[in-house]
Amino acid sequence: MKINGRHYRSLWEENTDGKIVIKAIDQRLLPFQFEIATLENYIELIDAIKTMLVRGAPLIGIAGAYAVVLALQELQSNKRTLEEIKEIAIEISSARPTAINLTWAVDRVLSKLDFSSTLQENFHRALAATRKIYSDELASCEKISSYGYELLLELFKNKRRPINILTHCNAGWLATVDWGTALSPIYRAWMEGLPLHVWVDETRPRNQGSFLTSFELLGEGIPHTVIVDNAGGLLMQMGKVDAVIVGADRVTSNGDVCNKIGTYLKALAAREHNIQFWVAFPTSTIDLSLDDFAQIPIELRSSDEINFIEGLAIDGNRIKVRITPQDAKSLNYAFDITPAKFISAYITELGVFENFQQLKSNLNF
Amino acid sequence: MKINGRHYRSLWEENTDGKIVIKAIDQRLLPFQFEIATLENYIELIDAIKTMLVRGAPLIGIAGAYAVVLALQELQSNKRTLEEIKEIAIEISSARPTAINLTWAVDRVLSKLDFSSTLQENFHRALAATRKIYSDELASCEKISSYGYELLLELFKNKRRPINILTHCNAGWLATVDWGTALSPIYRAWMEGLPLHVWVDETRPRNQGSFLTSFELLGEGIPHTVIVDNAGGLLMQMGKVDAVIVGADRVTSNGDVCNKIGTYLKALAAREHNIQFWVAFPTSTIDLSLDDFAQIPIELRSSDEINFIEGLAIDGNRIKVRITPQDAKSLNYAFDITPAKFISAYITELGVFENFQQLKSNLNF
Repeated sequence: MKINGRHYRSLWEENTDGKIVIKAIDQRLLPFQFEIATLENYIELIDAIKTMLVRGAPLIGIAGAYAVVLALQELQSNKRTLEEIKEIAIEISSARPTAINLTWAVDRVLSKLDFSSTLQENFHRALAATRKIYSDELASCEKISSYGYELLLELFKNKRRPINILTHCNAGWLATVDWGTALSPIYRAWMEGLPLHVWVDETRPRNQGSFLTSFELLGEGIPHTVIVDNAGGLLMQMGKVDAVIVGADRVTSNGDVCNKIGTYLKALAAREHNIQFWVAFPTSTIDLSLDDFAQIPIELRSSDEINFIEGLAIDGNRIKVRITPQDAKSLNYAFDITPAKFISAYITELGVFENFQQLKSNLNF
Repeated sequence: MKINGRHYRSLWEENTDGKIVIKAIDQRLLPFQFEIATLENYIELIDAIKTMLVRGAPLIGIAGAYAVVLALQELQSNKRTLEEIKEIAIEISSARPTAINLTWAVDRVLSKLDFSSTLQENFHRALAATRKIYSDELASCEKISSYGYELLLELFKNKRRPINILTHCNAGWLATVDWGTALSPIYRAWMEGLPLHVWVDETRPRNQGSFLTSFELLGEGIPHTVIVDNAGGLLMQMGKVDAVIVGADRVTSNGDVCNKIGTYLKALAAREHNIQFWVAFPTSTIDLSLDDFAQIPIELRSSDEINFIEGLAIDGNRIKVRITPQDAKSLNYAFDITPAKFISAYITELGVFENFQQLKSNLNF
């Protein structure tokens, strides 16, 4: 998608002096500063995942896969052994706990390695596997855009006026490679000329809505309004929301969805007001090993994300300010769970499914 | 209640050179700066209400009543006519639209005036009526503290461990004269030695939770944790919330509650998890003239409250930063509605009522 009229992806590889390096938009600086980071080794990639230079479930999967590639490249140039990659892979997978895509992608790359072969051979195997994940995720997001568009079109035909879609957090192209998950149907619909307007939940504490989703939508010229996370209930009471679309960080085998904290509150309100609640994700987000959402590790992040916020001062500089009393304690869980019963449809690269069991029967893992 | 160990009220009158002036804690500067504002005329009081130097439904009622007093004082010293007070009263009542307490208090003071009598006589009537409202509201909050405490005590006897109470916005002593509405049972319980912990919703966009409620609770040494507004659903899923207590800005004749935006989302979650949802208010917050919540005027405040936030920079100065993209549009409704069916109990100075009709039959307006 576009930034100031120029097409970008959120992350890509480059070859510098025969070495693979990763380029990624530094999402910690948006919307106030646009910078492309160069990540030269796996430690830098792990750090980028942890500090949320890159974020979004599908994107951290890809970043994790590339971290394996860079690790193999380093092992090779330092004349270390292939066996070490197993330990490193665990380190990469543990960079963030909740989104299953990270472990999924790292495991998928590992499964392509041949431990009886050379490091060089395995570097190429890992690179091929990673490029495949990259292009598959890209293709998945594009398919999600088309399948999700059908839902929006149906809604529009029904309402016969511009439709209002609420989204929480950022599940846009910055959270994937391009297109996005929750936002991709919106991009598609906009390209097809369907009149729409997006309510963008600010998404405290990291403000991915106002910092990233609004930034993305501005880049594509899509009408939207930033609201505080508290506002969705009132807007639904007023009849100003026609559908909610969100992404997912992990989906259990019974269709419960773990997503950015606050998603569940919108699902509760949507159900109360008979509003469609859609979850969009590539099937790499499904974790069939879990049948109880209580087993999902909910990431507990630093309280500083609540206590401080960064913004733009009047002089144009980014500045961090404290927004809680000095002695206040705060607690920062990053995700919550929306049980399957609240979800009107799952939008994936395999199609739209109202029932998760139907979706499961289409999986070929 | 206390700030740094010293007892304060949120607003009080002083007599300077034979003239009444109003002193109030400037709530726009908390928790980073503590300043007492002096409001010398009714225009300054209206401005204090509009800019939220004073805020909270019961407190703006009192501020509005004092604005009538100051207006009469000014009319008198400028040799103007008593009739003018009617226009001025409308101006005062319109300073903020949602909390009924403002109109209620202004009307109550007006009703005590005698238009056949002198300005001086009427100034004294208004002052007496305002002082009565002040002391009545204070007494009401103290009664609310005792009645609400009974509910907390019952909960504690049931749980036999420290109880966790979630509150949204600030309905503490800063929102009233002293004690508060939603927080007063918590203060009482803490004084009685009941072990408890408060989850403090940050309450975007004006952060009355993290700026004011946390500040209040720190002053009294009450254990609490600031959370983002998005977190309540997860905490309820985890069994970490035993009850929700909030205040109210207007209660309709069928018991629907208008309160700070985001309250409704917590009510939806509380119902889903069978958690008690209590609303505490003096009966001056009831508007029997409305039987449909759609008739309540929901205040639409400046988008700047979403686009900018003030906090403490590392150098200790308060600084305002922009937290939305430059071209982003935002929308800032200040209140939402929680229908009566979500409310487990109404806590008022007349007692605790599970059913609003019961409460209504105890009213003597």
